[in-house]
Amino acid sequence: MRFFSDNAAPAHPKVLEAIVAANRIDTAYDGDEWSRRLDGAFSDLFETEVRALWVTTGTAANCLALAALCPPYGGILCHKDAHIEVDEAGGPAFFSGGAKLILLDGPGAKVTPETVAAACDGIRKDVHQVQPAALSITNATEYGLVYRAAEVAALGALANERGLALHMDGARLANAIATTGASLADMTWRAGVAALSFGFVKNGGLNAECLILFRTELADEIAVRRKRAGHLLSKGRYLAAQLLAMLDGDLWLENARAANAAAQTLAKAAPKRLAYPVEANELFLNVSADEAERLRSLGFDFYDWGPGEIRLVTSWNQQGEDLDRLAAAIAAL
Amino acid sequence: MRFFSDNAAPAHPKVLEAIVAANRIDTAYDGDEWSRRLDGAFSDLFETEVRALWVTTGTAANCLALAALCPPYGGILCHKDAHIEVDEAGGPAFFSGGAKLILLDGPGAKVTPETVAAACDGIRKDVHQVQPAALSITNATEYGLVYRAAEVAALGALANERGLALHMDGARLANAIATTGASLADMTWRAGVAALSFGFVKNGGLNAECLILFRTELADEIAVRRKRAGHLLSKGRYLAAQLLAMLDGDLWLENARAANAAAQTLAKAAPKRLAYPVEANELFLNVSADEAERLRSLGFDFYDWGPGEIRLVTSWNQQGEDLDRLAAAIAAL
Amino acid sequence: MRFFSDNAAPAHPKVLEAIVAANRIDTAYDGDEWSRRLDGAFSDLFETEVRALWVTTGTAANCLALAALCPPYGGILCHKDAHIEVDEAGGPAFFSGGAKLILLDGPGAKVTPETVAAACDGIRKDVHQVQPAALSITNATEYGLVYRAAEVAALGALANERGLALHMDGARLANAIATTGASLADMTWRAGVAALSFGFVKNGGLNAECLILFRTELADEIAVRRKRAGHLLSKGRYLAAQLLAMLDGDLWLENARAANAAAQTLAKAAPKRLAYPVEANELFLNVSADEAERLRSLGFDFYDWGPGEIRLVTSWNQQGEDLDRLAAAIAAL
Amino acid sequence: MRFFSDNAAPAHPKVLEAIVAANRIDTAYDGDEWSRRLDGAFSDLFETEVRALWVTTGTAANCLALAALCPPYGGILCHKDAHIEVDEAGGPAFFSGGAKLILLDGPGAKVTPETVAAACDGIRKDVHQVQPAALSITNATEYGLVYRAAEVAALGALANERGLALHMDGARLANAIATTGASLADMTWRAGVAALSFGFVKNGGLNAECLILFRTELADEIAVRRKRAGHLLSKGRYLAAQLLAMLDGDLWLENARAANAAAQTLAKAAPKRLAYPVEANELFLNVSADEAERLRSLGFDFYDWGPGEIRLVTSWNQQGEDLDRLAAAIAAL
Repeated sequence: MRFFSDNAAPAHPKVLEAIVAANRIDTAYDGDEWSRRLDGAFSDLFETEVRALWVTTGTAANCLALAALCPPYGGILCHKDAHIEVDEAGGPAFFSGGAKLILLDGPGAKVTPETVAAACDGIRKDVHQVQPAALSITNATEYGLVYRAAEVAALGALANERGLALHMDGARLANAIATTGASLADMTWRAGVAALSFGFVKNGGLNAECLILFRTELADEIAVRRKRAGHLLSKGRYLAAQLLAMLDGDLWLENARAANAAAQTLAKAAPKRLAYPVEANELFLNVSADEAERLRSLGFDFYDWGPGEIRLVTSWNQQGEDLDRLAAAIAAL
Repeated sequence: MRFFSDNAAPAHPKVLEAIVAANRIDTAYDGDEWSRRLDGAFSDLFETEVRALWVTTGTAANCLALAALCPPYGGILCHKDAHIEVDEAGGPAFFSGGAKLILLDGPGAKVTPETVAAACDGIRKDVHQVQPAALSITNATEYGLVYRAAEVAALGALANERGLALHMDGARLANAIATTGASLADMTWRAGVAALSFGFVKNGGLNAECLILFRTELADEIAVRRKRAGHLLSKGRYLAAQLLAMLDGDLWLENARAANAAAQTLAKAAPKRLAYPVEANELFLNVSADEAERLRSLGFDFYDWGPGEIRLVTSWNQQGEDLDRLAAAIAAL
Repeated sequence: MRFFSDNAAPAHPKVLEAIVAANRIDTAYDGDEWSRRLDGAFSDLFETEVRALWVTTGTAANCLALAALCPPYGGILCHKDAHIEVDEAGGPAFFSGGAKLILLDGPGAKVTPETVAAACDGIRKDVHQVQPAALSITNATEYGLVYRAAEVAALGALANERGLALHMDGARLANAIATTGASLADMTWRAGVAALSFGFVKNGGLNAECLILFRTELADEIAVRRKRAGHLLSKGRYLAAQLLAMLDGDLWLENARAANAAAQTLAKAAPKRLAYPVEANELFLNVSADEAERLRSLGFDFYDWGPGEIRLVTSWNQQGEDLDRLAAAIAAL
Repeated sequence: MRFFSDNAAPAHPKVLEAIVAANRIDTAYDGDEWSRRLDGAFSDLFETEVRALWVTTGTAANCLALAALCPPYGGILCHKDAHIEVDEAGGPAFFSGGAKLILLDGPGAKVTPETVAAACDGIRKDVHQVQPAALSITNATEYGLVYRAAEVAALGALANERGLALHMDGARLANAIATTGASLADMTWRAGVAALSFGFVKNGGLNAECLILFRTELADEIAVRRKRAGHLLSKGRYLAAQLLAMLDGDLWLENARAANAAAQTLAKAAPKRLAYPVEANELFLNVSADEAERLRSLGFDFYDWGPGEIRLVTSWNQQGEDLDRLAAAIAAL
């Protein structure tokens, strides 16, 4: 019973059906009928005109966006625990041609206007020091916390004031939306977000993520960068069809709600062990090595996350007996 | 009726079935059971130990290989019509950090030991000029010609003598094998190929290509580069399963034979119009603008390829009535 | 007696004197009094407001300019014999993050509006092919030919029409000005040049070149790129002082005239052997290997330039007896 | 009276004389007689075979070395206050093609085997996290502290054990040698240093630094990288001559001793105000804003270094009356 990552979950049946339905002759690359529907479908969803480009990974989405938002000689402010810093193998520097990640601190992988402003103020305005050009935040964060729309807006206002482009890594944005009930519009462009990596694979997709550009004038450049980075698939229709299936009937939201609910079930089993509030589909539990071993011996699979801490991630399809057994096992520790 | 690219063809049903069959919980990235079988499966196929990494595009396969084979300050010899030069948006320079493509001439996008040697000899051995470090050939070429195993071996011998790593872009290697009857081993590593971009998507795949490393010591570096370039999919099992399905029962070869046969059907319809011999699944026909228009008015779709020339590409699934109608239409021009 | 390169010549005594005179305490980097005078001095010289940044090599000047004028995913049109293509070790790709040099043909390393337009027209306007963003010309060319101001203006007009930024490699611009009598303004910004690498080292300088930006808004970015590339010297005053010395009393023009006159002396000795008209300070002579050997046995030093051809370059200080002896020796071949 | 940087000092007269003496015709680039003497001269100095390449800045020396020691996808461990992190505008990422600086903490900008080991141990050994490939230390540090040879050797041993190449930024190595009395050999290659940026400009040079390669097999690659980065000056003899002048009669050591002595004079004037021990030619003093103002009103020029702290740097030529007046003024605060 795998609780170590939402990447381990299968694709939702409707996603698979959409791929099968797309299995016919059509134009190559992104000229097909599914790909051509993306801009419209996501513009409707976000209540504004956007450009929507499929890619196959969150790393690609993040790095393509950042490369367009930050020059090679610029800096990208982000949390020291951000995925782009910790888990993308230097991808932002690769795609941007050397841009520097300028690291911020703060609990739960959240940044605040104060930490951003302080970092900016600590940089001399000369050619010797890298000047920040962008700010990237992750929502939900790498520790399962959620920025409310007002928090994003406060960061967006500061970013605007400081001349920083605001990027959101939304690998688990669906979970944040499910938690807060905010509209996608309020959580993103109305709050000042310029570009969003909108995650679907962790949320029931197969291998399609979506890069959403609120600054639509960036789309042509990013389309070139996507091709140049080998991310323009020759049969893009199978990606576009997945995304459309996820939007259909708000499957993305339904899946996120299910994953979040599963996380709450576990959270309630051991409220005193939580290292962070559970606001999305990740739990960080204070658990000794012995206790972790006991859980594993019962067939549960998860990551250790530093000494005395484990991480559990729930997925769209993890309800029912397995979940209840894990909750009981945690409660019984 | 689309004859403009084998990218327009659907995926083979067995490929789809394999994806569906892989739709269950497993480890993320490339730790799953399908991905772990690739090295063995391709080692069997190539009769030697190889490392096999899935990627989603030929551009990614080519550029990851070249980045490992050529330093940022080196040069990659290739034909001026090579896909890496003409159709990858500068990807080789991006992935390698600035390596230079040094262009060779020659009919049908083929390079020869003579053109390679002449290019090398024309470069001063000093720090002012970019020194070649790799040679990349495409088999079948961008004009549908095929290198025989002996031709590759001659290039491999020269490459070895000149200190050049040999890369093969095998987007349509299956078609070349179907034509020549050579073994994959003879066509590649026995001929001196260090790394092969083995194409499956044009040949009935959905979105999985395979980078084959005969110099297995490169695999760890390339695995890092793959992640850094955003090409390590979080649910890699859906790619690996496709590749295994293509190997199963030599589906890759069967599909290529079908596409080649379709091309021969068309070639026989207008032997005098052929700009090049038809050795794989591409045809370049001397056809006036009026004639091209006539074919299009009958519902056939293809690319213009310079003045008075069109390109037709046949796919694994293009037999039967449509093909016969096109053959007849060409014959009737 | 060295005629193989104007780089072999010594620095002019006035340049040395200026360095000695600058040898006192001052602010570091480019904050000193000499560096701060450059913008004004060059603005006067070019009859318009420019930004002038010292660098130590023509390669740095060219590549910094091109990196600002062309995105990493763009193309730079230039002649196939251009210094940036042939003799800068891939520097343009390094500085720009992978921009592609798109090569033009034409006698004497000159490009024309026709060759530029044809190259642009041959590129599909899609994401698969690298789109040109800049045009770089060398004046005087690598074969000692000179673009007249009207020729530059014709290229500038085309560049503007095609959305290309125009860069001039002026390693020997002084010689071109000496030959044509054109004003620097007419030869550069009035003709549409956006950035100029203005050469001084080949013309009597010690180690200071100057990057002139007519699009002054590029200066801040390029100042950052200069630092990042390790080209912001900590004691820049010794570079700035050299440049000011070269401007003082138009020493740059006087030196170029002397070098050109020396070239004419040699050209007149063997008019029938000239592979190109002698319009600056380089001569390309049709000379057999035996004849070249004879000249060398008399103590003259020069480069072979392909079979049956040699290159002679004259410098600011090469008048008098040595020159006359070489002229006589050539005439006597 | 400038005490804000040793970059503000003039060049030593013997350096200027050497430049003047080199002002004659010779071969271009680094083929001249002075440049060709560098390997030998520095091999003698370091008591082992080295390759010695001139460059014009410490940033260039550092970044060229690091680009050869660390792959684009690797990490470079260094102190968070290191010059390469703080004052080189992202140069290491630019030259290396995206390598990541992994930052260490510790007083006085010093790293220890413990901090290095802890940083390495905190990195998962997988493709998602950047793996360290090099360690860079600065001696004397950015806070004027000195690593003893034994400390470097301890770091070198750890680096070797962990597979890290050890680089030393020796912008002020001369001062460290003057302080410790260690031999250059003990302080560098015998302690495991692979490449050294040996600074001369801060120590009485004009614009020549030297990159010393103890791993001599790196020299050819770095020579290419130097050219490609625009750092191969066409008249390199003026750089080589400076370096030879600095070596002659150990002028480099004499100058460093003078600068260190001046720093000691100041240190003795206010021992209780020192933020760090004074081990080279930099002083960091706890001084209020009012006190700083008073010093400035007396004509002394220096940097503020955070609230309540100033930085003073002494140079090779700062003895005598000015120095005594500053010492007295500090003592009188």
